[in-house]
Amino acid sequence: MRVVIIGGVAGGATAAARLRRLDEFAEIVILERSGYVSYANCGLPYYIGGVIADRAKLTLQTPESFRNRFDIDVRVRHEALSIDRAAKTVLVEKLDDGTTYKLPYDKLILSPGARPAVPAIPGVESSRLFTLRTVEDTFAISDFIEREKPKRAVIVGGGFIGLEMAENLVERGIRVSLLQRDDHVMPVLDADMAAPVQVRIREEKIDLRLGADVTGFSEDEAGIRVAMRDKKPIEADFAVLAIGVRPESELAKQAGLELNARGFIRTDAHMRTSDEDIYAVGDAVEVVHAVTGLPAAIPLAGPANKQGRIAADNICGIPSTYDGSQGSSILKLFDLTVAATGLNVRDAEAAGLDFDYALLLSPSHATYYPDAKPMTLKVVFEKPSGRILGAQIVGYDAVDKRIDVLATAIRAGMTAADLETLDLCYAPPYSSAKDPVNMAGYVIGNLLDGRVRQARWSEALGCGDKGILLDIRTPTEFAQGSLEEALHIPLDELRGRLGEIPAEKRLYVYCQSGLRSYVACRILSQRGFDCANVAGGYGYFEQVSLEAPFEPESVGPCGLRV
Amino acid sequence: MRVVIIGGVAGGATAAARLRRLDEFAEIVILERSGYVSYANCGLPYYIGGVIADRAKLTLQTPESFRNRFDIDVRVRHEALSIDRAAKTVLVEKLDDGTTYKLPYDKLILSPGARPAVPAIPGVESSRLFTLRTVEDTFAISDFIEREKPKRAVIVGGGFIGLEMAENLVERGIRVSLLQRDDHVMPVLDADMAAPVQVRIREEKIDLRLGADVTGFSEDEAGIRVAMRDKKPIEADFAVLAIGVRPESELAKQAGLELNARGFIRTDAHMRTSDEDIYAVGDAVEVVHAVTGLPAAIPLAGPANKQGRIAADNICGIPSTYDGSQGSSILKLFDLTVAATGLNVRDAEAAGLDFDYALLLSPSHATYYPDAKPMTLKVVFEKPSGRILGAQIVGYDAVDKRIDVLATAIRAGMTAADLETLDLCYAPPYSSAKDPVNMAGYVIGNLLDGRVRQARWSEALGCGDKGILLDIRTPTEFAQGSLEEALHIPLDELRGRLGEIPAEKRLYVYCQSGLRSYVACRILSQRGFDCANVAGGYGYFEQVSLEAPFEPESVGPCGLRV
Repeated sequence: MRVVIIGGVAGGATAAARLRRLDEFAEIVILERSGYVSYANCGLPYYIGGVIADRAKLTLQTPESFRNRFDIDVRVRHEALSIDRAAKTVLVEKLDDGTTYKLPYDKLILSPGARPAVPAIPGVESSRLFTLRTVEDTFAISDFIEREKPKRAVIVGGGFIGLEMAENLVERGIRVSLLQRDDHVMPVLDADMAAPVQVRIREEKIDLRLGADVTGFSEDEAGIRVAMRDKKPIEADFAVLAIGVRPESELAKQAGLELNARGFIRTDAHMRTSDEDIYAVGDAVEVVHAVTGLPAAIPLAGPANKQGRIAADNICGIPSTYDGSQGSSILKLFDLTVAATGLNVRDAEAAGLDFDYALLLSPSHATYYPDAKPMTLKVVFEKPSGRILGAQIVGYDAVDKRIDVLATAIRAGMTAADLETLDLCYAPPYSSAKDPVNMAGYVIGNLLDGRVRQARWSEALGCGDKGILLDIRTPTEFAQGSLEEALHIPLDELRGRLGEIPAEKRLYVYCQSGLRSYVACRILSQRGFDCANVAGGYGYFEQVSLEAPFEPESVGPCGLRV
Repeated sequence: MRVVIIGGVAGGATAAARLRRLDEFAEIVILERSGYVSYANCGLPYYIGGVIADRAKLTLQTPESFRNRFDIDVRVRHEALSIDRAAKTVLVEKLDDGTTYKLPYDKLILSPGARPAVPAIPGVESSRLFTLRTVEDTFAISDFIEREKPKRAVIVGGGFIGLEMAENLVERGIRVSLLQRDDHVMPVLDADMAAPVQVRIREEKIDLRLGADVTGFSEDEAGIRVAMRDKKPIEADFAVLAIGVRPESELAKQAGLELNARGFIRTDAHMRTSDEDIYAVGDAVEVVHAVTGLPAAIPLAGPANKQGRIAADNICGIPSTYDGSQGSSILKLFDLTVAATGLNVRDAEAAGLDFDYALLLSPSHATYYPDAKPMTLKVVFEKPSGRILGAQIVGYDAVDKRIDVLATAIRAGMTAADLETLDLCYAPPYSSAKDPVNMAGYVIGNLLDGRVRQARWSEALGCGDKGILLDIRTPTEFAQGSLEEALHIPLDELRGRLGEIPAEKRLYVYCQSGLRSYVACRILSQRGFDCANVAGGYGYFEQVSLEAPFEPESVGPCGLRV
């Protein structure tokens, strides 16, 4: 049996290694257009930043190492030009000399990946404009920096690669402008959760511009000029385009394999395309979203690797299936960690689900132990089932732990009630007796059981004279920052000062994080007041409103929306 | 309704606060024998070590703060002497003046906790012998250290509290002898996983003695002498006894409530005792083990807090249930993290399960990114289902993440196949594209599917002339340490050197971690060799054999045990 694999990174390389382990005698050929195989894809920005100092670290595997260890024939700088499905051959070009040859296959695995999206605007061919996909791209940027000693860079795109590049260019001492077309960075996050990320970006003196619609690039010997709609152009020494990726599915399309409307290759759960002898894996394939069950495109390394293994299994007669992606992803941004899994609010709306979300501001571990750091969690859940649909977390420590626990819970189909029961490890340096994930379960449980009504800041701020903002924080907290229109009664004095609260108004109660205000709401509601707990509290208000000011919503009497 | 709660820490305090949130008008009384309420139990050793410098941090809650916030009547230094179930009263002694009074209740919650076990040996009343349970105990040790400037301490017991105390006394500059009766520290671990912990303990110049059966203490003005069976006594300035805890269930027993044979209070899933008006929570209650379904006693803060909340729910008419504990626990030991959840090998044997375990030596994140740290994972699984039964992890970074993901997976009843599919977050600073937890799933899957036979080191070392040890590591690795009797053929040369391998012998193949040797086994078995992958590889051999030398097992022809 000869298996040909087109694309030797992530999914393709994993498929090849698994194939060999399963079948010592198969002939396995990898065709890789670039000069490198199975390289450290997700490490490329860190080479540019100097965090990964050694070139060899990016390319731990070589054609020779694949040959020696796995008896795999890796052909770098060989590009697959077309597939003849009837003849079961691939037409291959040797990029070094331009010659072509036909390579027969019994089974074919497509792992073509995705290429950086390039908009149809003037100047994208500029030698001062870079994209980042391959080792060659990385060295090109890195060599440019070494050679030209640039002082200023523009990054177009505020997703994962854009932000990782921003951090790494700052590490190299380069002043960065970051242009994002959307109203917030990191599209995997909702705007409120992106706000603290943006604050952190600006703290690093990165010139972040939102709503920046780049219309073209122009180059002269001094640098590159980036033009934007309705904004003054920016001059820089170079620019990086990181506005997303497009599936590299032309070969599959030419071969008549089934694609979806957005150009992603369709496969069944065995990663088999519409041709039973051709499999496809990685960033170019359509997957099932594990939460919605709907088709999705989720270009990430983890899923690609899993899919590669599954394709190999099936070729060797093991009927493994890929059960979908949920988009778990994480970003280091200086000392901040930003992570998401499952659905955000926009996703849940698009999927037509009945949902709500909880906001928590939790310490990374017991506050009586040194160095606990704050984190903000947003957990989206289905109503009335309480099934956890997604989570977003921004913080400084152990964010990755909580998002992976939530990712596991989502994969298991857990509800808020299940989160309450999770028996997680507690010692003061690591967590609290009630871990933030347990707390998320409790908060959602209380919402679902109707023990408290939750209000958003937009509603609270828009209540006008039908409601009143009630700040129940301590005098110290209140003095450090507060809302002018709020009535301030510290929680610990609340029972004795009920007479000061107008009984006919809805109370929008808040503390710093939403926890103590929940206690206050329980006191007040059982004593006949109409009240709502303002989700996230003043801490959330502060970190969000700097970047994404709340639009006050007009509300009717006692908070009924008009 | 008046609810009386006996014991104001962890479970009791949580129950009280939840009761108040659910019922603003209930009368809630907490009786607490010590002088402190809801204190930072798990932080006490860190106060002694000076890591938590401020006394007030240990006792964030006070009777006054409970009164003000929750309208709860906290009576510290009030001890419950007896319960009259017929009259529904508790007889209480005010410890400050010795007077007593009867306190009626409608519902009673017992949260008595557990006290340090004290063996029936001479000298346990010594003023230089301490135990650690309460804030008073903590201050007693801390004040002793301030006053006496001790140079040497003996800690009896190598469990969580013993090791936390050892670390914290070392932090205070005190030389510590640590005596453990068992053959390894940390009974939640198997001996092999305790070995690297013991190595780390000895690196800190802690005088660790295993198999140390303490027979008595004797005191003079110079210090305390700790006598042991068959060992020379040790002299020190003071000693700490941390050999485990006993449920504080005398009150429940006197009242005729149902206890188990070991003296733990029996409850139903609603945390209700054999008296329908009396609930019990925390360290003194018997729980159901979430993995085995068998009765267990798991004295930890997380479960106590959950149980307290559930008792409060039920008193207020919410039929919450406690679905069992799985013993998730974690220890910081200097820069090492040690964690466990679910069943270890001894537990799985005791439960009569058909099981096996996988060993992995994984980096904490992608090795091409700086500062990846090694961790060792032992994952116990059921055969043939692949259900994950338990895990133990020892390492330096992100151990807490992996154990909590595994704890969540165990809670969800996941199998190895489910671990493979977990969509966890990957970026180079945080993980690898195949997270160690995914890898555990792959390793177990390969074992269950019979793609490789796994051997233990004890079998490999005992194979005599029926087998041969085959070391497939690189020459560099081999030169750094190897087994004299091993045949060395680097993996990347294996296919070309098959002729050097005796065909009639079983091959016990190992690399550094067990991963590359799996590849070697797949090559060899498909080429007709009888081979087994030595679990954990040479890395595991090295870290274990320093402390727990492998007993070579006599094996028959080709590894069949005789």
